[in-house]
Amino acid sequence: MRIDLSRDVLAGNDSTAEANQRALADAGVLCVGLLSSPGAGKTTLLEATADAWGDASRLAVIVGDVATEADADRLRDKGIPSIQINTQHHGATCHLTAESVTVALAQLDLDSTDLLFVENVGNLVCPVGFRLGEHRRVVLISVAEGADKPIKYPKAILETDLALVTKTDLAPYVDVSLESLTHSIRQVKPNAEILGLSTKTGDGMAEWVSWLRELKAGSVA
Amino acid sequence: MRIDLSRDVLAGNDSTAEANQRALADAGVLCVGLLSSPGAGKTTLLEATADAWGDASRLAVIVGDVATEADADRLRDKGIPSIQINTQHHGATCHLTAESVTVALAQLDLDSTDLLFVENVGNLVCPVGFRLGEHRRVVLISVAEGADKPIKYPKAILETDLALVTKTDLAPYVDVSLESLTHSIRQVKPNAEILGLSTKTGDGMAEWVSWLRELKAGSVA
Repeated sequence: MRIDLSRDVLAGNDSTAEANQRALADAGVLCVGLLSSPGAGKTTLLEATADAWGDASRLAVIVGDVATEADADRLRDKGIPSIQINTQHHGATCHLTAESVTVALAQLDLDSTDLLFVENVGNLVCPVGFRLGEHRRVVLISVAEGADKPIKYPKAILETDLALVTKTDLAPYVDVSLESLTHSIRQVKPNAEILGLSTKTGDGMAEWVSWLRELKAGSVA
Repeated sequence: MRIDLSRDVLAGNDSTAEANQRALADAGVLCVGLLSSPGAGKTTLLEATADAWGDASRLAVIVGDVATEADADRLRDKGIPSIQINTQHHGATCHLTAESVTVALAQLDLDSTDLLFVENVGNLVCPVGFRLGEHRRVVLISVAEGADKPIKYPKAILETDLALVTKTDLAPYVDVSLESLTHSIRQVKPNAEILGLSTKTGDGMAEWVSWLRELKAGSVA
């Protein structure tokens, strides 16, 4: 397996991503992409977001995984319309492509959707270069991963719009805090927008939902 | 970027990996590969292993990262000869290749090495298909990642020889335990070899070092 960084492939993906983004904006749907390591809490965040949003049926999720339908099942249990893409049946296993999102979009009722999340495969490297049509991209970094991850995976910080520091309730047990992660995120990107949250305690959830509502109220989509 | 799963590329990597493995066996060096998500504790495990092994200078590490020399610096501080490979300067960013390991081997003094670790890029997907010349491969899964990761990334379990459940000291705070992870690992691979450990408390370190010493005493290399 070799990564072919040919400009043609990336340009093809980018133009499909732009078409997805236009189609979503035309339908009045705000699209937010989520990237992270495996186990940083993307699906749990979406479950908590559904509770905080009020009407879960106005959200939708396209979720990518190497295998299983587990995440989409969890989200459907919360009342969120969800499409699972198993990447092992596609050419690229380690990330979603704009084309796979186009296929998934056709299965969603965009007219009754306010906010669409695209939850990528758990991977801090491969998904970064592939725009999918998101209006904003969010990277999640759990305090349990250590304070050095932003520096070791800098593109995941540089090419996203918000860094969400998750599992802040674990900070006392791992010698990593929102402050130490903020420090290393800003070493990579001095003006980074950063929020900390814990779905367990609820800390930071209000700020996250405000961030989403402000985007939605603005002119993005 | 498209993953080209062509048989030629994989076969070329495999034959280079076999040559690495033979060269290491000829030099009497046992080679153990480490795979995991970002932040599962690979480098911290190697620091603790150096302390437990007795003579850190008899160990060596080849460490892959997208960016930075940080991990090799940490390991050199422990007295372990270490070579850092920055994958962003190679064709494939998201995993090491057998060829990159061949280049690194030439920079190590194999005659004074008992045990060589190859620490891959933090990524549970891409490194799995690329043998590097290891005699054994170990996957680390932190309890903080959640009990479902073995099921969502099954090849990382199926194509490795030992599953190390790390950060077991965090189990009380994350509602995931060695037992629940063992359960999901065995769903993927019923006869999986599994060890749990915490470098913070030292629990399980003796079993891990015994596993290494038994391999070394055996006929593997």
